[in-house]
Amino acid sequence: MRALQYRSIGSAPEVVEIPTPEPGPGQVRLKVTAAGLCHSDTFLMGLPAEQYIYGLPLTLGHEGAGIVDKLGDGATGVAVGDSVAVYGPWGCGHCHACSEGRENYCTNAGALGIAPPGLGAPGAMADYLIVDDSRHLIPLDDLDPVDTVSLTDAGLTPYHAIVSCLDRLYPGSTAVVIGAGGLGHVAIQILRAITSARIVALDIDEDKLALAREVGADLTFPSNTDAVAAIRNATGGVGAQVVFDFVGTQPTLDIAQQSVAMDGKIQIVGIGGGVLPTGFFSTPFGASVQAPYWGSRSELIEVFDLARRGFVKVHVERFTLEEAPHAYERLHAGTISGRAVVVPHAEG
Amino acid sequence: MRALQYRSIGSAPEVVEIPTPEPGPGQVRLKVTAAGLCHSDTFLMGLPAEQYIYGLPLTLGHEGAGIVDKLGDGATGVAVGDSVAVYGPWGCGHCHACSEGRENYCTNAGALGIAPPGLGAPGAMADYLIVDDSRHLIPLDDLDPVDTVSLTDAGLTPYHAIVSCLDRLYPGSTAVVIGAGGLGHVAIQILRAITSARIVALDIDEDKLALAREVGADLTFPSNTDAVAAIRNATGGVGAQVVFDFVGTQPTLDIAQQSVAMDGKIQIVGIGGGVLPTGFFSTPFGASVQAPYWGSRSELIEVFDLARRGFVKVHVERFTLEEAPHAYERLHAGTISGRAVVVPHAEG
Amino acid sequence: MRALQYRSIGSAPEVVEIPTPEPGPGQVRLKVTAAGLCHSDTFLMGLPAEQYIYGLPLTLGHEGAGIVDKLGDGATGVAVGDSVAVYGPWGCGHCHACSEGRENYCTNAGALGIAPPGLGAPGAMADYLIVDDSRHLIPLDDLDPVDTVSLTDAGLTPYHAIVSCLDRLYPGSTAVVIGAGGLGHVAIQILRAITSARIVALDIDEDKLALAREVGADLTFPSNTDAVAAIRNATGGVGAQVVFDFVGTQPTLDIAQQSVAMDGKIQIVGIGGGVLPTGFFSTPFGASVQAPYWGSRSELIEVFDLARRGFVKVHVERFTLEEAPHAYERLHAGTISGRAVVVPHAEG
Amino acid sequence: MRALQYRSIGSAPEVVEIPTPEPGPGQVRLKVTAAGLCHSDTFLMGLPAEQYIYGLPLTLGHEGAGIVDKLGDGATGVAVGDSVAVYGPWGCGHCHACSEGRENYCTNAGALGIAPPGLGAPGAMADYLIVDDSRHLIPLDDLDPVDTVSLTDAGLTPYHAIVSCLDRLYPGSTAVVIGAGGLGHVAIQILRAITSARIVALDIDEDKLALAREVGADLTFPSNTDAVAAIRNATGGVGAQVVFDFVGTQPTLDIAQQSVAMDGKIQIVGIGGGVLPTGFFSTPFGASVQAPYWGSRSELIEVFDLARRGFVKVHVERFTLEEAPHAYERLHAGTISGRAVVVPHAEG
Repeated sequence: MRALQYRSIGSAPEVVEIPTPEPGPGQVRLKVTAAGLCHSDTFLMGLPAEQYIYGLPLTLGHEGAGIVDKLGDGATGVAVGDSVAVYGPWGCGHCHACSEGRENYCTNAGALGIAPPGLGAPGAMADYLIVDDSRHLIPLDDLDPVDTVSLTDAGLTPYHAIVSCLDRLYPGSTAVVIGAGGLGHVAIQILRAITSARIVALDIDEDKLALAREVGADLTFPSNTDAVAAIRNATGGVGAQVVFDFVGTQPTLDIAQQSVAMDGKIQIVGIGGGVLPTGFFSTPFGASVQAPYWGSRSELIEVFDLARRGFVKVHVERFTLEEAPHAYERLHAGTISGRAVVVPHAEG
Repeated sequence: MRALQYRSIGSAPEVVEIPTPEPGPGQVRLKVTAAGLCHSDTFLMGLPAEQYIYGLPLTLGHEGAGIVDKLGDGATGVAVGDSVAVYGPWGCGHCHACSEGRENYCTNAGALGIAPPGLGAPGAMADYLIVDDSRHLIPLDDLDPVDTVSLTDAGLTPYHAIVSCLDRLYPGSTAVVIGAGGLGHVAIQILRAITSARIVALDIDEDKLALAREVGADLTFPSNTDAVAAIRNATGGVGAQVVFDFVGTQPTLDIAQQSVAMDGKIQIVGIGGGVLPTGFFSTPFGASVQAPYWGSRSELIEVFDLARRGFVKVHVERFTLEEAPHAYERLHAGTISGRAVVVPHAEG
Repeated sequence: MRALQYRSIGSAPEVVEIPTPEPGPGQVRLKVTAAGLCHSDTFLMGLPAEQYIYGLPLTLGHEGAGIVDKLGDGATGVAVGDSVAVYGPWGCGHCHACSEGRENYCTNAGALGIAPPGLGAPGAMADYLIVDDSRHLIPLDDLDPVDTVSLTDAGLTPYHAIVSCLDRLYPGSTAVVIGAGGLGHVAIQILRAITSARIVALDIDEDKLALAREVGADLTFPSNTDAVAAIRNATGGVGAQVVFDFVGTQPTLDIAQQSVAMDGKIQIVGIGGGVLPTGFFSTPFGASVQAPYWGSRSELIEVFDLARRGFVKVHVERFTLEEAPHAYERLHAGTISGRAVVVPHAEG
Repeated sequence: MRALQYRSIGSAPEVVEIPTPEPGPGQVRLKVTAAGLCHSDTFLMGLPAEQYIYGLPLTLGHEGAGIVDKLGDGATGVAVGDSVAVYGPWGCGHCHACSEGRENYCTNAGALGIAPPGLGAPGAMADYLIVDDSRHLIPLDDLDPVDTVSLTDAGLTPYHAIVSCLDRLYPGSTAVVIGAGGLGHVAIQILRAITSARIVALDIDEDKLALAREVGADLTFPSNTDAVAAIRNATGGVGAQVVFDFVGTQPTLDIAQQSVAMDGKIQIVGIGGGVLPTGFFSTPFGASVQAPYWGSRSELIEVFDLARRGFVKVHVERFTLEEAPHAYERLHAGTISGRAVVVPHAEG
């Protein structure tokens, strides 16, 4: 089968022919219907050798959907022909966190060598994908795989960040979304759907601010040093109850730090390399800072239910598997609008 | 192998010889180390034919522990020789509730014919037990199976009932435990371990009230119509923030109804057949009434961690498999102190 | 000043002239801008003498708004001329519940003889109203008093009922609203604003179902015995995660009981005189039943913030103080559309 | 009356004679029974002029208790002769946070010039203390004022930090307490009372580690760079679900950062001047960092209820008002065991 692989440090990913994998005991093979590209793919391909921990060659793609194609021995819970999406942050399934479906915080995955598809295990940018257990498959039913696949990360990650501080998003509160791109524009839709918080979006790109307004932002400001005063002004000096930073560079974290309210929360989602110095003389009384990671199984079910209700839509640009290297170039160059999705099979 | 079966409506359970089962794909076979008796077993054996829904013959035992003996195809996550306990309220593993490990509220189990061992599926009162999936096994490690097995129901059920209203059990609050028997005396220990609530125990049996005091009750009263005044008096007229009724008959529910505080909670755990008329002119403002069922996977992990810390201990009386029918007679007669546990193998 | 008083058991309320009250120490006098009528007023005027506990004569009106007119000694926190609304469920201000602003569950109010205005204390259906403490006043700022006053009960009560079970109103869940009248049609708007739950409205009146759809219900059904099957059908057999009963008669509570999901919640808000028999053999596993009462101080602030955002609007019909007896007749006859509001002063 | 005042930057506090204050409208005058010393007093007296914001002269003492001595006009809710303690983090009483009794996060206090007694307003180190509103008084009833007064800060602050992350302190979790001094040794008692978490205490002083064990710590380690490995080892590599840092210097925050678990929480309570760099490449996935401040009104009620149950005891050393300057010297020198309390009146 064909697979898009990252094969050596610093090189571009390439489409290669590899043996079609067989599902082992308890595993499930999918015929891939859609595989999403993500900035974290370009992030890991930019790592120097000494920091790169994902193995080589690596078949890319941690956002995946497919048709159940073959069941390994003992695999239950899905049937051949089912249209499913893949819950990506695989865990051991047995620890305290996994027993609650919060496999994104599995305490054993590291020690057991368990890694998500595309981030250690072979990913979804291929004709076929092996999923380790049917519990990692969520039925899509009538949801379109290409339109939906990005939600497995670009929907689940902001959703988890939002529900982790839902208690602060009461009527009258203000949520700031820094970065109105792939994850940010989904976050705005989720905030609109499940809270009544006022939504303030920041971005350096006016087109993205226009998109932010279109999908539900109440106020938008350029993401620069004036943003803090604008947010303080819009909140009567109080600041924002929650700031979601989908960029995560030092300048955006500085804005977050200065615009959050007392007893508020800063959610660092973007992997821009910044850190936020937290403490009594740095952040407001009671403000907390977290870098949440991906999301839980039930949260992904909920994200799909938001999509079924029409509350969340991702703008998607389609590519064939052969076009995937080019798509990554465009992603790196910032010329993808919304999310890029690879569709390996013509009928996908 | 030997199995204790309920074989016809109204008859006593008997030990019979049946073929030793083989684990199917994904399943796990345990060599049983301990199987607990429960009042709900006697309850179901007392049902008339038209209400009995568990199939015949039924191998009893929904509290089970064992040594992993054989893995079916594709079964992972445990190894032969592991000492484990069985999480009993089996669900589909895929619905919203199951994805959070709250299989006790699985929305598909009924339609799919999934039933707990001993309550539909063959139970643990046998030499060997088939468990449908390794996710239903919790490692015991160094916990003694005989001392621990009862916690899979008699510990998990009160634990779930308690954590479901933990927000009301703040310092200064009062928790009433009606019925200081098998589940009740564990509930008192759990309340003592994870809250600072004042614990008031009610029972009709003075020996059980003595046990209640021994395991941590602050106050004890006979469970009769004077109990309401005693609770009101002990709480300055306010009433109890939570009432746990481990009996569930009409007289005990009446006490619960009259002794709960405004904005309090009544947890009906005992299956005594009573109902609590809930509403504006019947229960105090804001009081809520719930009949919680068993518990979740992570809650069982937590119960075992309480046992590891020495916070929860069950008084256990041991029986051989051959003695099990007699043990059920004694359970029915109310002459078991604590919980009765069947140990099928001499080395168990 | 003029006041609308209920003066003898069974009689109609009448407008009488009484002395204008002076604010005592710590109290605040309002010049009333708006006073809302409520079904609970007609409920209490329908009580026989032996059940009537509110004192006579009783100036009606527990939904009140006004302009701060005069401060008693030591009263702080508001200034003469402020436009405010009254938080009605007055408590002692010092007990555990009151210290969290949940004065609706004050444990001392009964013993201290503290009662809400219009439900014991003199109410808002008058030219002037005495409020016992400025903490019971919420600034209206630019909100119109007449459009807003009903939210102090008809908004706060459903809001409190909803946020008390917000954890069950996740994406993919279903909320049933029984009774799409005064409180129900506000509940639908609140559910739409702060959750993504699917909203099913039931009513016996097709006009109210049309209103329900207009303000955000996804599905509507006649409130009869077929409703249970319709709800089960719409939820794949699972039932509704939450049922709000704004009627509270036995037939509607029966619907609630039969349509709630496992681990779901029934909120009894309507004072229709029914009770819901709760327990193992009556309600689904884990389902809980509550009769919440009014709401907290911060919840009222939040309701007003929803109104400021335009998320909640009450249809209001205005009456002069002299017309108030007639308005109550129409309320009793069921010919008021939305909520009736008395505006005592022409400029109000 | 006598008052202990900080009168000029850099000088020692001194006992001076000032006029006995009269309670204004709504205010309450206490005859002080006990006033606690706190490290934050020495912290503020160590600030250079350009950072000092509390006004001069400043009567010290933000931990206060007294007998109600005189009521200002309109003051209600307490009676002359009541024994009370002072809730210190005074707020406006009207904002969203204050309406929930969380005045420690009042959004208006700064703008309105509202400050706690001893931290801007005249404090409790005097014969008499003016309290701005009776809602800031909590009845002591039969609690001894001298034994209890320190809990208004040294109990409330750790209690608030603990209950803010109670969801992570489930059975089987580990809580690390860095600094087993004044606040830390109370934190250990609170953790023991309201959770079943395993408690690991760190300190540089072996005597304090002995105290930690005495009041309930399960494990103790010297607070140095080996502590991280010790904690990782004690938790099977997972780390601590919560780390409470009651020191807050850079070395202790470094320990916190390296010993917290995924999805865990770091609570920075000590004002040691350190900051914790929070973010994807600095803190574990999902870990959050907060610097909580003091606590809420209902939390103080709960702390006193813990004391009533005997769950929390503070070791107290008594001083007269004249000895107070000397007591501050000893506090600064670190030779106070437990907490120092000033008792102004011989009969106090």
